[in-house]
Amino acid sequence: MTDERKEFDLIRCLFAPLAAHRPEALGLLDDAAIIEPDSGQGIAITTDCLVAGVHFFASDPPDSIAARSLRVNLSDLAAMGAVPDSYTLAIAIPENCDNAWLRAFADQLRRDQEQYEIDLIGGDTVSTPGPLTITITALGRLPVGQGVRRSSAVVGDDIYVSGTIGDACLGLSALQKGGDEFDQTTAEYLIDRFRFPSPRTQLGPQLLGKASAMADVSDGLIADLGHICSASGVGADIRLDQIPISDDARRVTGGKQESIMALLGGGDDYELVFTASRDIRSEVQAVGEKCQVAITRIGHICEAKSEQVSLLDEAGEILPISSTGGYEHQW
Amino acid sequence: MTDERKEFDLIRCLFAPLAAHRPEALGLLDDAAIIEPDSGQGIAITTDCLVAGVHFFASDPPDSIAARSLRVNLSDLAAMGAVPDSYTLAIAIPENCDNAWLRAFADQLRRDQEQYEIDLIGGDTVSTPGPLTITITALGRLPVGQGVRRSSAVVGDDIYVSGTIGDACLGLSALQKGGDEFDQTTAEYLIDRFRFPSPRTQLGPQLLGKASAMADVSDGLIADLGHICSASGVGADIRLDQIPISDDARRVTGGKQESIMALLGGGDDYELVFTASRDIRSEVQAVGEKCQVAITRIGHICEAKSEQVSLLDEAGEILPISSTGGYEHQW
Repeated sequence: MTDERKEFDLIRCLFAPLAAHRPEALGLLDDAAIIEPDSGQGIAITTDCLVAGVHFFASDPPDSIAARSLRVNLSDLAAMGAVPDSYTLAIAIPENCDNAWLRAFADQLRRDQEQYEIDLIGGDTVSTPGPLTITITALGRLPVGQGVRRSSAVVGDDIYVSGTIGDACLGLSALQKGGDEFDQTTAEYLIDRFRFPSPRTQLGPQLLGKASAMADVSDGLIADLGHICSASGVGADIRLDQIPISDDARRVTGGKQESIMALLGGGDDYELVFTASRDIRSEVQAVGEKCQVAITRIGHICEAKSEQVSLLDEAGEILPISSTGGYEHQW
Repeated sequence: MTDERKEFDLIRCLFAPLAAHRPEALGLLDDAAIIEPDSGQGIAITTDCLVAGVHFFASDPPDSIAARSLRVNLSDLAAMGAVPDSYTLAIAIPENCDNAWLRAFADQLRRDQEQYEIDLIGGDTVSTPGPLTITITALGRLPVGQGVRRSSAVVGDDIYVSGTIGDACLGLSALQKGGDEFDQTTAEYLIDRFRFPSPRTQLGPQLLGKASAMADVSDGLIADLGHICSASGVGADIRLDQIPISDDARRVTGGKQESIMALLGGGDDYELVFTASRDIRSEVQAVGEKCQVAITRIGHICEAKSEQVSLLDEAGEILPISSTGGYEHQW
């Protein structure tokens, strides 16, 4: 069948330079790339597909689309404790993406590659009559036999979350509503948090051997902690007043309980939620300091129960979480 | 942002069984899969994105779409000499794909997994307002330091192609024209060749250490041999009368030179084109017999020249190849 774009030209001009440091990418011009893990190394593999109008706005700037597409995958690697290594990019390009758009997209990939020490090793560029659709498959390295699963949380473990929760959700809201509800500086900060997630690629690998279970917060804190609970056959109690919220989010929500609760179902945070034995609290905090990421203890793992995750107020009373929402989009 | 499908249900019902034999897939429910290569093993990685209306017809049966999506990737692995191991599947699903459609799609993947000894280890299912878009990233295993590149053809090498060339191109034509030009049995055979390619997954790995350069024929024989030539800095002379054509293709083309020439630009064959030293002709044929795949010597590698690939008639005269065509869609 036909494909009107001259893919080889695109590859040569825009994407091949992104693979220049990796001889195993074979200049992106062979049938496949070849990676050769060191002895004792395993490879973590994750893939995410992002569609314009579903996972980002078609009008979003190309740099933010590039960053988001790559970083959501880096977040998955971090949640396994894997160090980013390489990725493939499959991009289905609609007619309205011109070369300037594609150049800006590739430029951001280059910047992210430097920041996260990862390289392009293969991919596919095709035309589509539909929305821009980007699929990245990211590979990370980790010691054989390791990797932090979701299924190994133990009753009595502490529950932690990195960074702050809810900014991206508020940023999305600002984009959807035109940002009138927030002052400009706040809106810009929150939108930036939505468009440019900060995957915890340093922190994740440092938690190998320490975290008993881990996931990244993509669907929402309650939903993702729920995934850990169902995989581990346990329950979780977390305290609303312990949830780390940024100053901007606190100001925007006015500190109202219901507004903060809504953030826990919002998703797109790309923070790490993990469990660890209460015997290693100081070690966990030391890892956070080493990685310069705030790590907040928000509750503990309990026996399995009907609602996997309970949200408690300061008095220990259960708060109703009607909509834990979030969109369940990641394997 | 929102995604209306209950992805976790879909995974559990349709896709998780495809990963059941692979503990490293973590039931498709963790953040990433983990594969652990044996010592001395490298991993070949390739990705292909297929869009309805571009790479297949939206009305194609779901089994053929599943087969095609996986097999084009297996063909890339074969062209490196890698043995299929595992794959990730990212599928952007339009509203008109109901559960029956998805079940038929997954059923074919299961059949192909058995046939090609490969397992699903991860993926992503998302909704799209646009056409069905399928991205598969396939991983294969091969000995460290090996892998047949496109860049190592040597002047004097023989040029071979597996199987027959042109059936898929005629099958596509039959689909586009409604099949009236062919009798029904012929049309069915040719369409089947387009919809269900036969990647040479046995042959490819057997050519490790024998083929000097190799590619799969996806863009068309002339185009893909041209890729070997440009990567290797050489030229190629091939003989039109040596090109292996199926009985059906010969009947349909009436053996006309021009019609057969058109097939060489048609693409979608998913055969292997490779080069090898003329000193090992009997070894190459023995590999073909072992794998029960016809291997035909069609020409030889020469010094680089302006048109990379020359097509010669029986008298050695150069035939004009105006449209080497094919769509250059694969990295």
